[in-house]
Amino acid sequence: DRIKMSYEKRAELAQNPITKQLLNIMATKRTNLCLSADLTSTTKILSLLENVGEHVCMVKTHIDIIEDFNDDFLVQLKHLADKFNFLILEDRKFADIGNTVSLQYLKGMYKVAEWADMVTVHSLPGEGILKAFTGSINGVSRGVFLLAEMSSQGNLISAEYTKATIDMADKYSDLVTGFVCQNGEHIKNPAFIQLTPGVQLINAEDDFGQVYNTPETVVLEKGADVAVVGRGIVAAKNPESQAVIYKEALWECYVKRISN
Amino acid sequence: DRIKMSYEKRAELAQNPITKQLLNIMATKRTNLCLSADLTSTTKILSLLENVGEHVCMVKTHIDIIEDFNDDFLVQLKHLADKFNFLILEDRKFADIGNTVSLQYLKGMYKVAEWADMVTVHSLPGEGILKAFTGSINGVSRGVFLLAEMSSQGNLISAEYTKATIDMADKYSDLVTGFVCQNGEHIKNPAFIQLTPGVQLINAEDDFGQVYNTPETVVLEKGADVAVVGRGIVAAKNPESQAVIYKEALWECYVKRISN
Ligand SMILES: O=c1cc(CO)n([C@@H]2O[C@H](COP(=O)(O)O)[C@@H](O)[C@H]2O)c(=O)[nH]1
Ligand SMILES: O=c1cc(CO)n([C@@H]2O[C@H](COP(=O)(O)O)[C@@H](O)[C@H]2O)c(=O)[nH]1
Repeated sequence: DRIKMSYEKRAELAQNPITKQLLNIMATKRTNLCLSADLTSTTKILSLLENVGEHVCMVKTHIDIIEDFNDDFLVQLKHLADKFNFLILEDRKFADIGNTVSLQYLKGMYKVAEWADMVTVHSLPGEGILKAFTGSINGVSRGVFLLAEMSSQGNLISAEYTKATIDMADKYSDLVTGFVCQNGEHIKNPAFIQLTPGVQLINAEDDFGQVYNTPETVVLEKGADVAVVGRGIVAAKNPESQAVIYKEALWECYVKRISN
Repeated sequence: DRIKMSYEKRAELAQNPITKQLLNIMATKRTNLCLSADLTSTTKILSLLENVGEHVCMVKTHIDIIEDFNDDFLVQLKHLADKFNFLILEDRKFADIGNTVSLQYLKGMYKVAEWADMVTVHSLPGEGILKAFTGSINGVSRGVFLLAEMSSQGNLISAEYTKATIDMADKYSDLVTGFVCQNGEHIKNPAFIQLTPGVQLINAEDDFGQVYNTPETVVLEKGADVAVVGRGIVAAKNPESQAVIYKEALWECYVKRISN
């Protein structure tokens, strides 16, 4: 079962190239931390990644909040991803009919398809949305994380919705890398990665309904493979040392999880 | 009841300034047609609107599919909106936690808050998402269309989801202008506008699961106040004459609806 299996072992089982690559990075760098780089200035993001890049397996972006976006930023982002060996997830939460999503993914100012290893997608519009993506762009592998649950209070995702999302992924397993969710008990397949946002060192909330759980809760109780931390690191006085604290806490939970 | 009431009458009842303005435009211009300007070039969009602007009450944009986006485009778009008296709906389908949506709405390259009279928002993340918006920006009114249903095949919206979305709107009636939905039987309040996409002159489908209904079906049977037409006009040989055909068909249905 997924929960008890090591990342190395799962990398061997994974068919999807992006899943394999991500699990190998996690095992090699000994980190299951994803940084959510939610800043609005390119220089601030790049200097954050310069400091934190070595501690994470993945960087999650919201490219559409950046105020001084330019193509050179993408070059530098890719350079840092190579230098520190992390993957990039653009957290776009595509949520339209397939025809529109195809245009949003391939066109526009941000040209997400060209640089994002993975993107997040809502299953809400039905499986037609997955037809907007392919497993590779110009010969380079691409992956999709489907949102099976959300971290925010009062969200409208039901148990049936989550189940339908997991079923959808089984049909598109060449494309789907895993799920963004809170509780992975229904994700049995070790080839899918559970990505869990809403993580801080203490239980808390923000003013817009975001709900936080601790590393122990998300990795040991809820089955997270990768934990997403945004403000817990980005808003810290010293993001680098805070990232190390999260990395170590999360990794320790993972080691405990697979060893007993 | 909403269905039998004229747009003029509803404009008088509406509290929300954007709802009032939209209903007045519809009554004055005698059109309930919204053009979905889904093109990827600024010059093509502007020339389309030059030809079609007088026939529509609203233009719906996907700003993030445009390949040569620039700030001057926004100036010209606003100029056309003034010249032809239509409102602009940016169909962003915001779908994240409130804190992230607030950044996506206010920041980034597209600065949606500055120019879009209205935006589309998914209720999926829960009511915290509505806290990311306010009823006015720099003293100018702003509105939100909540997605209560989708047009695409196999979408995961349940009856409970739709009901929860309508309940959410009642709590934020200073902000919510109406609903994007297929069947407005549960929208009783004449102060909310029903916006219905997936409209063509004949029943059809696209390759990504989009489903089309006719003007008669959407206005007379399903209760649409404003019908959204994209490819039905944009991909026509002569978009202007096609827009006139849609405008007249849709208006005739509305007149029939309120008169019997
Ligand atoms: O259910 C979700 C899904 C996602 C990712 O798809 N997120 C994102 O994680 C990040 C959490 O940031 P935080 O740790 O600062 O709350 C934000 O970028 C938010 O948009 C959530 O916060 N909740
Ligand atoms: O449920 C929905 C909701 C929306 C709008 O929020 N849309 C949008 O209407 C337009 C329909 O275009 P079409 O007439 O070319 O299919 C597209 O921009 C699509 O993104 C839909 O097609 N279905």
